[in-house]
Amino acid sequence: MKKSYSFQIQPQDVDFQHKATLAALTNILLTTAGFNADENGFGIRDLNKNDCSWVLLRLAVEMNIFPLQYEKISIETWVEEVSRATTTRNFKIYNTNNQIIGKAVSNWAMINIIERRAQDLSGLNGIHQFATGEKMDMEKPSKLHVIAGRLADTFKVKYSHIDMNGHTNSMRYVEWVSDCIDIEIYKQKKIKRFEINFVNEILFGEEVSIFADDLGNSDFRFEIRKNESVACKARIVMTPYP
Amino acid sequence: MKKSYSFQIQPQDVDFQHKATLAALTNILLTTAGFNADENGFGIRDLNKNDCSWVLLRLAVEMNIFPLQYEKISIETWVEEVSRATTTRNFKIYNTNNQIIGKAVSNWAMINIIERRAQDLSGLNGIHQFATGEKMDMEKPSKLHVIAGRLADTFKVKYSHIDMNGHTNSMRYVEWVSDCIDIEIYKQKKIKRFEINFVNEILFGEEVSIFADDLGNSDFRFEIRKNESVACKARIVMTPYP
Repeated sequence: MKKSYSFQIQPQDVDFQHKATLAALTNILLTTAGFNADENGFGIRDLNKNDCSWVLLRLAVEMNIFPLQYEKISIETWVEEVSRATTTRNFKIYNTNNQIIGKAVSNWAMINIIERRAQDLSGLNGIHQFATGEKMDMEKPSKLHVIAGRLADTFKVKYSHIDMNGHTNSMRYVEWVSDCIDIEIYKQKKIKRFEINFVNEILFGEEVSIFADDLGNSDFRFEIRKNESVACKARIVMTPYP
Repeated sequence: MKKSYSFQIQPQDVDFQHKATLAALTNILLTTAGFNADENGFGIRDLNKNDCSWVLLRLAVEMNIFPLQYEKISIETWVEEVSRATTTRNFKIYNTNNQIIGKAVSNWAMINIIERRAQDLSGLNGIHQFATGEKMDMEKPSKLHVIAGRLADTFKVKYSHIDMNGHTNSMRYVEWVSDCIDIEIYKQKKIKRFEINFVNEILFGEEVSIFADDLGNSDFRFEIRKNESVACKARIVMTPYP
């Protein structure tokens, strides 16, 4: 079963070029996932009743056109499949002309929030009959490699970065890596593909370091490290404006 | 003429206590102002046609109850008055029981975006007949004093901080001052009143310093400085949980 949700790009969602940021789009995709899971009985609040929650493992987004400020978009979403360990949810982003302007694939796990351990999805009610099997015609989110990279920024995680679980909000990771790209590059090139792997949660007060590596100014690789371990890996592929 | 707009508090709007953050509420208030001005012919896009725009000068927010994650709120807004230099817009925040959970008063000026100069509001179409004269039963936003304060943070303004004009987004100022308050204080006290004065815009790449001064842990004063000048002053008054 597919369903569509409508959004309007707000002033706080856009960058200096009036285009929705990758962080804002990611946030809209996660909101869409939340709405759709909620409506069908397997949202975070349903999982919370059994001390469980969803954890986003990987996300890949491919954009043809970035929506502009005040533009209305519609996001179609469905669950592709559910295995024991993970589930895949897909998204198509449409503009008001019913043109597909972007696509996304996300992988999720269910964890027990007390034991912080991955749970078997076989027994989760409601989601299995909901999976359509319909694949997305784009490369799935891959396991990103460790990079060398230069240190782009370092700071402590603050009050405004954390969510209701005391973990860094997914949107912040996307902001932090987006901030590594020189503003002149944003003027010359647009983002074609974005991939992110969430490896480890980052808590309030932890010291994070953002590392960036640009392979020829079009294929950026990022790592967010806390202490000496990798918490998040990301990749942004850009293409020159025509 | 008054009008109400509905919102739902989303996961990214709440803090570790599941309550909407001051930054998220400020953002919702500014979105409400934008919707209402747009619908009545004096929104930013209307002003842009004459190379003008709205600039938020001051905002005061008083909260009785902070809405929680997924809570639906409704914001009633109206223009109180329009003088030559500024206009006042008021807000009442309701929960689904039709109880007033918060109030806000905002002061705005119109500037010419090319000359960066304040404009006379006398000639602005549509807004004068729209002003109701109805005051808000709360203290207006005041001119905040310069503080001494300790240096709480310093960094460069990044891509994710700026809006479509290349200026720091108002929401970021609220996040930056909110981040100065110790997380233990958030557990013991709630925010009763928030005031902010926008003095000078902050541009991409500028070095900002956040200064904080707490007058007995309940009346926090803040200054955001760029170079040696004050760009923003703010105040957060807290009260212990009953």
